[in-house]
Amino acid sequence: MLPVSNRGGEAASFMDAWFTATSATCVTGLVTHDTYTFWSEFGQVVILILIQIGGIGFMTIAISALTLTRRKIGLSERMLMQESVAAPQIGGIVRMSKFVLSGTFFFEGVGAVLLACYFVPRLGLGKGLYYAVFHSISAFCNAGIDLMGYYSPSSSLITAGDSYLVGLTIAGLIIIGGIGFLVWEDLKKWKWHIRSYKLHTKMVLFATAILIVGGTLLIFVFEWGKPSMEGKNLGQQILCAFFQAVTPRTAGFNTIDLNMLTDSSQALMISLMFIGGSPGSTAGGIKTTTMLILVLTIWTELRKRKDLELFRRRVESEAIRHACCLMMFYGLLSIGSSMIISTIENLGMKQTLFETVSALCTVGLSLGITPGLGTVSQIILILLMFIGRVGGITILIAFTNRISMIPSKLPVEKVSVG
Amino acid sequence: MLPVSNRGGEAASFMDAWFTATSATCVTGLVTHDTYTFWSEFGQVVILILIQIGGIGFMTIAISALTLTRRKIGLSERMLMQESVAAPQIGGIVRMSKFVLSGTFFFEGVGAVLLACYFVPRLGLGKGLYYAVFHSISAFCNAGIDLMGYYSPSSSLITAGDSYLVGLTIAGLIIIGGIGFLVWEDLKKWKWHIRSYKLHTKMVLFATAILIVGGTLLIFVFEWGKPSMEGKNLGQQILCAFFQAVTPRTAGFNTIDLNMLTDSSQALMISLMFIGGSPGSTAGGIKTTTMLILVLTIWTELRKRKDLELFRRRVESEAIRHACCLMMFYGLLSIGSSMIISTIENLGMKQTLFETVSALCTVGLSLGITPGLGTVSQIILILLMFIGRVGGITILIAFTNRISMIPSKLPVEKVSVG
Ligand SMILES: [K+]
Ligand SMILES: [K+]
Repeated sequence: MLPVSNRGGEAASFMDAWFTATSATCVTGLVTHDTYTFWSEFGQVVILILIQIGGIGFMTIAISALTLTRRKIGLSERMLMQESVAAPQIGGIVRMSKFVLSGTFFFEGVGAVLLACYFVPRLGLGKGLYYAVFHSISAFCNAGIDLMGYYSPSSSLITAGDSYLVGLTIAGLIIIGGIGFLVWEDLKKWKWHIRSYKLHTKMVLFATAILIVGGTLLIFVFEWGKPSMEGKNLGQQILCAFFQAVTPRTAGFNTIDLNMLTDSSQALMISLMFIGGSPGSTAGGIKTTTMLILVLTIWTELRKRKDLELFRRRVESEAIRHACCLMMFYGLLSIGSSMIISTIENLGMKQTLFETVSALCTVGLSLGITPGLGTVSQIILILLMFIGRVGGITILIAFTNRISMIPSKLPVEKVSVG
Repeated sequence: MLPVSNRGGEAASFMDAWFTATSATCVTGLVTHDTYTFWSEFGQVVILILIQIGGIGFMTIAISALTLTRRKIGLSERMLMQESVAAPQIGGIVRMSKFVLSGTFFFEGVGAVLLACYFVPRLGLGKGLYYAVFHSISAFCNAGIDLMGYYSPSSSLITAGDSYLVGLTIAGLIIIGGIGFLVWEDLKKWKWHIRSYKLHTKMVLFATAILIVGGTLLIFVFEWGKPSMEGKNLGQQILCAFFQAVTPRTAGFNTIDLNMLTDSSQALMISLMFIGGSPGSTAGGIKTTTMLILVLTIWTELRKRKDLELFRRRVESEAIRHACCLMMFYGLLSIGSSMIISTIENLGMKQTLFETVSALCTVGLSLGITPGLGTVSQIILILLMFIGRVGGITILIAFTNRISMIPSKLPVEKVSVG
């Protein structure tokens, strides 16, 4: 980033610029410096544009640009596009990218109007609108980068934490952004005909509902009567628990000091960050559908069924292996890298695991250790953000693209498991 | 347990007796009171017998008793026996239980002789032999209950931590006990003809070797120059790292104060405890074979193969689902219960997670919080020990034994994973 991006007028260090650009493009939201106090307005707008580009995806924009110039889209470009939004068919990609773009701007617009009701009276018309647009985009793209350093540095949305308007609007934008384009399309097409939904849509909605309701309840119980909830009335406590249950998947705003939460809540937030959003969205993590498949393997064993069944559909055994692979990949990466950072920086595993999961799942929540990390640790976090954004599976596929699928002919041998 | 079991002469509380009996029978090794200072010699012998019974399994002893009285063994009893040692064929069960018993006593005898060389010069002939036998059985059965409270309460093997003889003997007993009967049989049958080993044997030996070497290396690096290693020479540091890498799977002795270890080492030990030993052994955890299958799913995806392959054999897709189910079951149980205990007792998640994984995987290592826990938390730990010993899968199977396997005829629908 250029010197003009920096508030002090001097050029930001290369590491700071690289870290922030990666964080914005990968819509993670981990920052080495408070966005408001460190970067100038120009720098902030650059960050905002990076978020928007990162959020709706390089591919969507590229395809849209191609559509506007009326060039023909080749099959390989369509394939690439398909991978980035995880669509099951190749057809209709161009139509869908238009749909994605219009949906994005529509929801961001609505969010900005609602947020403006909060910011304009407090910051005046110009600055208020700027804040409303910035935070609406940042929430919808699940970036979680904020400008609230105006009130107090690195405070995220704590200042506005007790406002129902801000809390519910931001949470709504996060949820809509996080369920993914494929679900929007299905909902728009079938409206309330729930039976006609795709299996994917049903799984996403089911898992999202459980995670939000369960997460809110658990955080509420864990924090009941604890210092983090001091001075809040019952409604504000519920709002606070709700917001903290929504934000780990995978926005990265917080309306409460995360260091004040109990260990149980922090562990729950790590789990929620790990799960993340839904395929075909701006969110990261192993994804809700993956989690649902993994949990359902227990249910399948319980029922002694041969196949995993859900909503009267059978899930392929390949999907189980994919899910398993993703979880192991994410799990080993986050635990391994947090061990490395913990050893290098002499920090507790809780903090470093929170930070690495946050980076890998592009969440951006932090227990506050990121600004103080050394270069090696920051590079590890950058790599994690990048891996998390591009997606574990995509990397694995790219890695071995030239090898064709070889059917195995080896004899089976039984193995004892457990 | 009777009043005579207790050193003070008064009856131990019901909770203490229940907890200790469960811990001994399930060969876990978590204790509410230091074994030496709290229980009388009579109580200690009861505990030792419970360990031995628990260790080689109710089933093995029952079947052996039946064999000795020359009664015919029914198919259902053979089936039960088979489940408890995870043998792939029903035939030869009786022969094998004899083999298991003789093997157990042989190794315990050798271990006791070696340990006697350490204990007899220090404690006199009678007490020295008693200590040698007690710790040999406790190590081989992966119980991890010790009598070293004679030196200082709840110190496990820290006093003898710098002795190569004790360290290597105990570690050897733990490893042999933990690789399981099935592997012994294969090794005895084929000696050095590695190619003729069963896939199971190869997987167990491979995974065990990696976990021991990798674990030792990592703990050595994590603790390099840290307070835990103060005053030890290089050999003792390696011995110490080696012992702490072996013991979480799933013995539960420690030769170093676990609270002094770095967070990274503690996290690594939680992971090792979670993995545990091998099927058909006295060890708990999700088992080495399960872990190997889970990690290999990543490798399979990388190679774009349709099936998981290993040592030129194909692993059934059912085994992957089983492995996945086990991991999710153990993971959800240990994280969930540690959140509950953390909330009830106001303790950090690190301590409670260490304790619940230790209980569920019947390890018995502790960061020292077990004696101070309330009744509810202790009952949770008891349940975890029991579930962990009987084995997640066995419980699941027992739960639905009457439902026959129903082949699914539902249509497949593709789902996006990740
Ligand atoms: K984010
Ligand atoms: K044990």
